[in-house]
Amino acid sequence: MNQEFSFTLHKKQGQARRGTVHTLHGDIRTPAFMPVGTVGTVKGLYMDQVKGTGADIILGNTYHLMLRPGAEQVAKFGGLHKFIGWHGPILTDSGGFQIMSLSKIRKIKETGATFQSHIDGRKFELTPERAMEIQRLLGSDIQMQLDQCIQFPHTEQEAEKAMQLSLRWAARSREAFGKQPGRGNFGIVQGGTNEKLRLASAEGLKQIGFEGYAVGGLAVGEGQPLMLSTLDFTTPALPEDRPRYLMGVGTPEDLLESVARGIDMIDCVLPTRSGRHGQAFTRFGRINLRNAKHAEDMRPLDAEHSCPALSQYSRAYLHHLMKAGELLGMMLLSWANIAYYQSLMQGIRDAIDAGTFEDFRAATHEQWQRGDTA
Amino acid sequence: MNQEFSFTLHKKQGQARRGTVHTLHGDIRTPAFMPVGTVGTVKGLYMDQVKGTGADIILGNTYHLMLRPGAEQVAKFGGLHKFIGWHGPILTDSGGFQIMSLSKIRKIKETGATFQSHIDGRKFELTPERAMEIQRLLGSDIQMQLDQCIQFPHTEQEAEKAMQLSLRWAARSREAFGKQPGRGNFGIVQGGTNEKLRLASAEGLKQIGFEGYAVGGLAVGEGQPLMLSTLDFTTPALPEDRPRYLMGVGTPEDLLESVARGIDMIDCVLPTRSGRHGQAFTRFGRINLRNAKHAEDMRPLDAEHSCPALSQYSRAYLHHLMKAGELLGMMLLSWANIAYYQSLMQGIRDAIDAGTFEDFRAATHEQWQRGDTA
Repeated sequence: MNQEFSFTLHKKQGQARRGTVHTLHGDIRTPAFMPVGTVGTVKGLYMDQVKGTGADIILGNTYHLMLRPGAEQVAKFGGLHKFIGWHGPILTDSGGFQIMSLSKIRKIKETGATFQSHIDGRKFELTPERAMEIQRLLGSDIQMQLDQCIQFPHTEQEAEKAMQLSLRWAARSREAFGKQPGRGNFGIVQGGTNEKLRLASAEGLKQIGFEGYAVGGLAVGEGQPLMLSTLDFTTPALPEDRPRYLMGVGTPEDLLESVARGIDMIDCVLPTRSGRHGQAFTRFGRINLRNAKHAEDMRPLDAEHSCPALSQYSRAYLHHLMKAGELLGMMLLSWANIAYYQSLMQGIRDAIDAGTFEDFRAATHEQWQRGDTA
Repeated sequence: MNQEFSFTLHKKQGQARRGTVHTLHGDIRTPAFMPVGTVGTVKGLYMDQVKGTGADIILGNTYHLMLRPGAEQVAKFGGLHKFIGWHGPILTDSGGFQIMSLSKIRKIKETGATFQSHIDGRKFELTPERAMEIQRLLGSDIQMQLDQCIQFPHTEQEAEKAMQLSLRWAARSREAFGKQPGRGNFGIVQGGTNEKLRLASAEGLKQIGFEGYAVGGLAVGEGQPLMLSTLDFTTPALPEDRPRYLMGVGTPEDLLESVARGIDMIDCVLPTRSGRHGQAFTRFGRINLRNAKHAEDMRPLDAEHSCPALSQYSRAYLHHLMKAGELLGMMLLSWANIAYYQSLMQGIRDAIDAGTFEDFRAATHEQWQRGDTA
């Protein structure tokens, strides 16, 4: 494949968009959910299972991979795709979020961020230029600018300061990205939940010009209503002809409602993290398999689903595995959740194609609320 | 399948035997390694992976399953095969070993054992009759007598007392087993490392009469030389026309050397437990993937093996996964180890069939020692 990085918008219904992102390692059908492979594995799944659920693209993380095994080392291995055995597109986050959430003793300066590794306390510096160099060494198909993330709640002044710094880092990231045929560089809109700041951020990024635009700094504690209202005024400010990526979100409800607000790509650790803790996301809503009420329920999570994790294992067995702390319980529920997320996205794509997105959205909410247990 | 439980001895070379055990749920090619599925899962593997490695039979455990989810509950689910999704033969241990090794405040009386659960301290009683009832409720194909296991080292008097009690429990277990077409009941030879006691135990069991005979109470700390010398005098005392099962052993070396001493069936948690801790067993000997020397080694564990876990993942990636504490590392190494154990057994069976077992034995030891790393 030698194609240019590009985005084709096939159809719109309301704000919801149906498209295709073209990359060096293949196409991404949007709206897309991207499973997270932080350190080079989607936790608990084999890559052929990830592919089998319908995922076109997975994530890797600059912060984690620079610490271990190291970007230069991954390059020596022939790049991240080869090292981890995933041959489709890979998006790598720039590390900004993890510097906020994971590292110890971090210091943000104009030049970049210095921080101590959460693994062994070693000191690292991450500048916009180094973040882009790492992602180039990893060989990722979509490379994110370095940004400054801030915790919620924050003052308007803090949000503005971080947004402005992120904009300056965006320009430097863009410069450092250079030209990489088939690969794309995304800018990240910041500005908290403040409309004026978000619009200024979007405007600044558009002036720099990116292959795609991400909405960052959400799902950091502000709650779903504030997150969605922020999307309401942010996505219309983004270019129609570029993919829009909502970072680190969320529940199936969040996915559906973000798509309804014009989001094309989305990633989250929630399906695998929740799976490891015994929670399944299904057509029928959330099911906590640790709950004793499932102990004698011989029904699978969803008899009609094509994924074996959803259709071939009883809730009683899943309950037993989770109570016994067995790896297989974590494996099955992680797989089941990724499979459900992907089938939700397929349902969304089909509905937009068919012009029935609003019906699909209502029916999906209704079924989640109805559930299938007493 | 409605066949009777039986054993066909196809060929002998020295003490090594090639045979087939016929059960209600299918045939077991011997010598056989039986992966351990203590609580209803071979830790870290999908059942189709277990099957794919060439395993004909897996183990379940009376002690664990009586505590959770409970034998009556498993029976309500339609039996263990259905509950866990394994459709081949299942052997269940009687719980004697776990009462020694896991339970709190145990008390052994003539009638049976009383103990407290290692999970929640609940009190249980396990008599020979109840151990057999539980295994019948589970629906296992090979049901073990209840025995009394003792720690190593022990006095001859302790070993004799436990052996004699185990013999009386053997008679009661046999009585309780009754008639179960297609299913077999195995007696367990005890007696520590003492020849006189082992021979008396074997003689007593033969007088009761079982479908198969197990050698218990080994691999409890006595070391390989003493274990093998115990087999040297124990297996010749067992009936030629019944399968012989060495319980809870061991390394690939132990497997090969036990087969050379007339053992037909063997089980151990070692391949999965070691896999979870980063150790691989291969044709080239043991490889500790946590060791830094593998960090840049892009070779798979064994490029020529049919199991993807051995042939499709680099040692560098496995090292990375283990250092990062990732589930996939544990999954892959557990799978790789079970696959290697099964291919070793296939090699053993082929060699006995071909009359080349001694050559195979020598070449295998030689390759383990040679290794393939500096």
